[in-house]
Amino acid sequence: MKKIRVGIIGAGRIGKIHTDNLLKLSQVEVVAVSDLFAGEELMAWAAERGIDQVVQDSQVLIANPDIDAVFICSSTDTHVPLIKQAAKAGKHIFCEKPVSMDITQTEEALECVRQAGVQLQIGFNRRFDHNFKRVRDHVQNGTIGDPHIVKITSRDPNPPHPDYIKVSGGIFMDMMIHDFDMARFVTGSEVEEVYAQGNVLINPVFAEHGDVDTAIVTLRFANGALGVIDNSRQAVYGYDQRVEVFGSKGSVAVTNDHPNTAEISTAEGITRDKPLHFFLERYNAAYILETQMFIDSLVNGHALPVEGFDGLQAERIALAAKFSRELQRPVKINEISELLSQQSVAQ
Amino acid sequence: MKKIRVGIIGAGRIGKIHTDNLLKLSQVEVVAVSDLFAGEELMAWAAERGIDQVVQDSQVLIANPDIDAVFICSSTDTHVPLIKQAAKAGKHIFCEKPVSMDITQTEEALECVRQAGVQLQIGFNRRFDHNFKRVRDHVQNGTIGDPHIVKITSRDPNPPHPDYIKVSGGIFMDMMIHDFDMARFVTGSEVEEVYAQGNVLINPVFAEHGDVDTAIVTLRFANGALGVIDNSRQAVYGYDQRVEVFGSKGSVAVTNDHPNTAEISTAEGITRDKPLHFFLERYNAAYILETQMFIDSLVNGHALPVEGFDGLQAERIALAAKFSRELQRPVKINEISELLSQQSVAQ
Amino acid sequence: MKKIRVGIIGAGRIGKIHTDNLLKLSQVEVVAVSDLFAGEELMAWAAERGIDQVVQDSQVLIANPDIDAVFICSSTDTHVPLIKQAAKAGKHIFCEKPVSMDITQTEEALECVRQAGVQLQIGFNRRFDHNFKRVRDHVQNGTIGDPHIVKITSRDPNPPHPDYIKVSGGIFMDMMIHDFDMARFVTGSEVEEVYAQGNVLINPVFAEHGDVDTAIVTLRFANGALGVIDNSRQAVYGYDQRVEVFGSKGSVAVTNDHPNTAEISTAEGITRDKPLHFFLERYNAAYILETQMFIDSLVNGHALPVEGFDGLQAERIALAAKFSRELQRPVKINEISELLSQQSVAQ
Amino acid sequence: MKKIRVGIIGAGRIGKIHTDNLLKLSQVEVVAVSDLFAGEELMAWAAERGIDQVVQDSQVLIANPDIDAVFICSSTDTHVPLIKQAAKAGKHIFCEKPVSMDITQTEEALECVRQAGVQLQIGFNRRFDHNFKRVRDHVQNGTIGDPHIVKITSRDPNPPHPDYIKVSGGIFMDMMIHDFDMARFVTGSEVEEVYAQGNVLINPVFAEHGDVDTAIVTLRFANGALGVIDNSRQAVYGYDQRVEVFGSKGSVAVTNDHPNTAEISTAEGITRDKPLHFFLERYNAAYILETQMFIDSLVNGHALPVEGFDGLQAERIALAAKFSRELQRPVKINEISELLSQQSVAQ
Repeated sequence: MKKIRVGIIGAGRIGKIHTDNLLKLSQVEVVAVSDLFAGEELMAWAAERGIDQVVQDSQVLIANPDIDAVFICSSTDTHVPLIKQAAKAGKHIFCEKPVSMDITQTEEALECVRQAGVQLQIGFNRRFDHNFKRVRDHVQNGTIGDPHIVKITSRDPNPPHPDYIKVSGGIFMDMMIHDFDMARFVTGSEVEEVYAQGNVLINPVFAEHGDVDTAIVTLRFANGALGVIDNSRQAVYGYDQRVEVFGSKGSVAVTNDHPNTAEISTAEGITRDKPLHFFLERYNAAYILETQMFIDSLVNGHALPVEGFDGLQAERIALAAKFSRELQRPVKINEISELLSQQSVAQ
Repeated sequence: MKKIRVGIIGAGRIGKIHTDNLLKLSQVEVVAVSDLFAGEELMAWAAERGIDQVVQDSQVLIANPDIDAVFICSSTDTHVPLIKQAAKAGKHIFCEKPVSMDITQTEEALECVRQAGVQLQIGFNRRFDHNFKRVRDHVQNGTIGDPHIVKITSRDPNPPHPDYIKVSGGIFMDMMIHDFDMARFVTGSEVEEVYAQGNVLINPVFAEHGDVDTAIVTLRFANGALGVIDNSRQAVYGYDQRVEVFGSKGSVAVTNDHPNTAEISTAEGITRDKPLHFFLERYNAAYILETQMFIDSLVNGHALPVEGFDGLQAERIALAAKFSRELQRPVKINEISELLSQQSVAQ
Repeated sequence: MKKIRVGIIGAGRIGKIHTDNLLKLSQVEVVAVSDLFAGEELMAWAAERGIDQVVQDSQVLIANPDIDAVFICSSTDTHVPLIKQAAKAGKHIFCEKPVSMDITQTEEALECVRQAGVQLQIGFNRRFDHNFKRVRDHVQNGTIGDPHIVKITSRDPNPPHPDYIKVSGGIFMDMMIHDFDMARFVTGSEVEEVYAQGNVLINPVFAEHGDVDTAIVTLRFANGALGVIDNSRQAVYGYDQRVEVFGSKGSVAVTNDHPNTAEISTAEGITRDKPLHFFLERYNAAYILETQMFIDSLVNGHALPVEGFDGLQAERIALAAKFSRELQRPVKINEISELLSQQSVAQ
Repeated sequence: MKKIRVGIIGAGRIGKIHTDNLLKLSQVEVVAVSDLFAGEELMAWAAERGIDQVVQDSQVLIANPDIDAVFICSSTDTHVPLIKQAAKAGKHIFCEKPVSMDITQTEEALECVRQAGVQLQIGFNRRFDHNFKRVRDHVQNGTIGDPHIVKITSRDPNPPHPDYIKVSGGIFMDMMIHDFDMARFVTGSEVEEVYAQGNVLINPVFAEHGDVDTAIVTLRFANGALGVIDNSRQAVYGYDQRVEVFGSKGSVAVTNDHPNTAEISTAEGITRDKPLHFFLERYNAAYILETQMFIDSLVNGHALPVEGFDGLQAERIALAAKFSRELQRPVKINEISELLSQQSVAQ
């Protein structure tokens, strides 16, 4: 059986995780890695894994005729040009979320992918989580009837570094984008309207960049369901990842995973350990599964589990949320084009 | 010790519950009951409890000089006139929620109470619930730091009778009013702005009366916290009453009470019984405690645990939610007067 | 409808609880109370409740022709003579557990009850608990198939007063007797053999009286099931009352009741309040129900929910456990007579 | 860094699992595998993993001078001779439990290991489980004070194949041996006495081999604590693996792991999925960790996490349990030698 030969673009934390997960798959050969800051350390890291090509210039990697697919794990601003180049070079693409912070550019990238006839999967890793998949299962198989109310809680244990906040694209595009995708994933319905509220309650640094650290967004779905997402950049008790879908025949709810089930009873009360700390621990298995399913789809010609369109839709919702917070009113997803053109006129 | 002599106005389901709870208190004598439809059945019911006076006309009861306090358990449209009459007659008052559906009338009733120097407690029974009190405790004693996010879920097992829907005042004034009070109770902060969404997903009869059966309302509090309440008129698995407050130092969350702790494990899965069915079961102890604390306050001259102002504030928030849904935009609580005057001009 | 007129013998803590629970029942009149130490305080307590007769001598109460039924709540050593006297006087009897610590005497008392044709209910209050009833339901209705393993945990929050330990009859007769009854109740099968282990791990005072404070007893049932009960006189986290029945088609398990469902998440971990403190809080509703069902049975001529035989069987198992610990070997319930006669020969 | 070169003896299910886990470790090279039935299939399996040597005769593998350590994963009756041979050949040894069903032979094997100066780890995988380690942590760090009561539940989802039952050594030596080790592991105390009860409630095939399918064993520990283990060969709801240690300052309890946290609420009740099915799913991470810690200990010269003595002690307890069931009385661990010699005299 011919192996899928993969090149990794961007060898930061997530690039390295994907590499190690790919190396566990017998159908995959990781043949090259590119990173702007590739040096001795990366060479050693690659050597240990039997990866032959280590380059600084991603163009070299994309031009490598031995590569079937690329993983784009570099900074968000590089995603669109890299997708276009890789697509033109006939490579299949796995790209981290978000594709970009500019939906016009995202649309162009998707069009380019379409024309090239290559496959593009977006890194919405949470779709591969055992808990959230179980929610979707129960919605899809009708256990809970028609969805009426969707509730998503997503809180990080710690805020990101201030340097990152500046370039993050804001809480809706950087953090809640996962939840916007989750809302679509678990309901199987499109979001039509959002209303976003936010506040700076944790660290004034967010305000300096026009961002918020605490946000609640309500959603109205095409199928009539209502939804709400709450985000916080700092839950001192750890990573808080919960989803509930309530419907005409019942509800399904998933809560946090814990490192163990131990319950300690003392004279002071009953205690258990905090949830799994952060996304690396919590979504470890999901990261493995998303790469495996990407490769499987390429090998078997199946449809991808998350497509470019999913990335685009989540960005549209995030953009609508941004507008909603600025305009202090609910915003329809199909208003975005007009709001964008008003904005460009105003500038 | 002199007993507090109580008259009950309105001997429907809730009036009878209050009566039986009052009869358990050694400091109380229930001396009269009035009900528009008082007849043989009520006479028998009263006789069994040693209640001497049974009348159809509440005026007779209010005029009874042997009565110290009245419980107003009649239909909502009678609350304001009865409060005014009882206050003028120097009776202390326990009144079911809402005081009225017209905040101007509620304000007049409260002013009348103030001038008469009598006590008025509003029937927000959930404030006396063991779970919600524990949430408030942990917010007040600083366990969770400054509140950032408040989440309240409140879903009924069955919709009310269609006849009731028509006169209910709508989901915000009839059902979510409890949650608006809960939001103020657990945070100790005022709500400044609301945004309300609703939909008819359960029964078209709600649409016939301009009402909805499913609603999500977001809140912005004076202390900067954000909140969200979701209501459904029909949770097939039973009464769903949950509250969570998330803050700078942690979170406190309460979930449903169950009739037992039994967990059944079979080849099909692991099962437990549904939550306590509805408000009579769920808030049984809370109903007892609210009457006891009302009487205790009268006897000992303590401040009441829920005052007329609490009723007024919850009505204001409910009204703002109603406007928000109509206007499809967030509404500030202090906009209400202007919106009301615009409305009356328009009519 | 004629009321059941009740006399209370022994006005200690449990006698007062039964009295107050009986007073809630419309079918009951409490007409007399006797207590060795009856004085002004008890007179006042009885007067407040409208109980006319307060005496020191229980004979006076038993001789009162106006009394239909007596509640025997005095010390264990008085139970047998009181049962005999009350039975001969034609009174129905509710008697606290154990009937006695001498099964021959218990047998005599039961025989006396049988001959008199009166009813005798034993105060195994836990049979009326919402959790344990649910376990029994699921065993009886076949949900879990044939029972294979029964596990009962019963731990008190604090050891009793040293003065009580001396006269308690030991952990098996005083504390675990409830669990022996529970084992029979939830399985619907008789215990045939026990093996008892114990140790003094909490307070040496238990050793002084030949007693233990920590014990594990295994059971073999007539239906082939195996069981185990563990007792501790001191669980610092509170009253621990759990039961599990495992069978051919699954298992049913009940755990502790808590004063609320609040879960507190902080940087230190996730905490909830301890279980309901002790038997008065935990079995409050069960105490109410056991008196109600006793009265209902008398009124309607139904079979009693716990009979004298149930008291006897639990004592037999407790005695076998005592022998087992002394002899350091498993003991069959039907060995008891022989072991008792050996013991009397040896003395 | 020099790699540890490993040979696998016995390529059944568990041998293959260990191989794959070893292959994940950068410090390890798997150089050979032996299996009585080695054929084409195994050759292919080995080739896929880059394992060069595949033989039928374990002697060839043991004689291979390139091998530093062997994993003995063959049938129990081969363990002792293989340990002796491997030890004499200077190989470090990882051996599956039990070492043998004859403690004299186990003692001889351990002596041989001692004389050879090699390392021997026993495959008590549950010691590496996240839940049970947390129990041990809390006992060791004093959270729960002195242990008073230890409770271990261990139930398999399905009985083994009848062919296996015959050679399994019986429930105590085959299944409960894990729990005997767990009892020592979580308390850090030796077991001094056991009393074993068993019954055939699931399948008469167990009786045919003098075995039972349901068992309860009570334990008395050197530190005074009491314990109880219950085993069933068939829990229809899945693998049931729970431990509780109760002590002077509180308790720590762990319960089952589940494939997800989903809770489904419908009109019928509240349901969740069954626990992780069986040992391969449940102890997946524990298997990985036990091989990693074995290798780490060899590389760094640390003490092994489970030693030969641990295997021997668990066998002694299992043997005492076997005697206890036969003799229908409690048996002390230090009685075993005498009971064994009586047995051999009797034969």
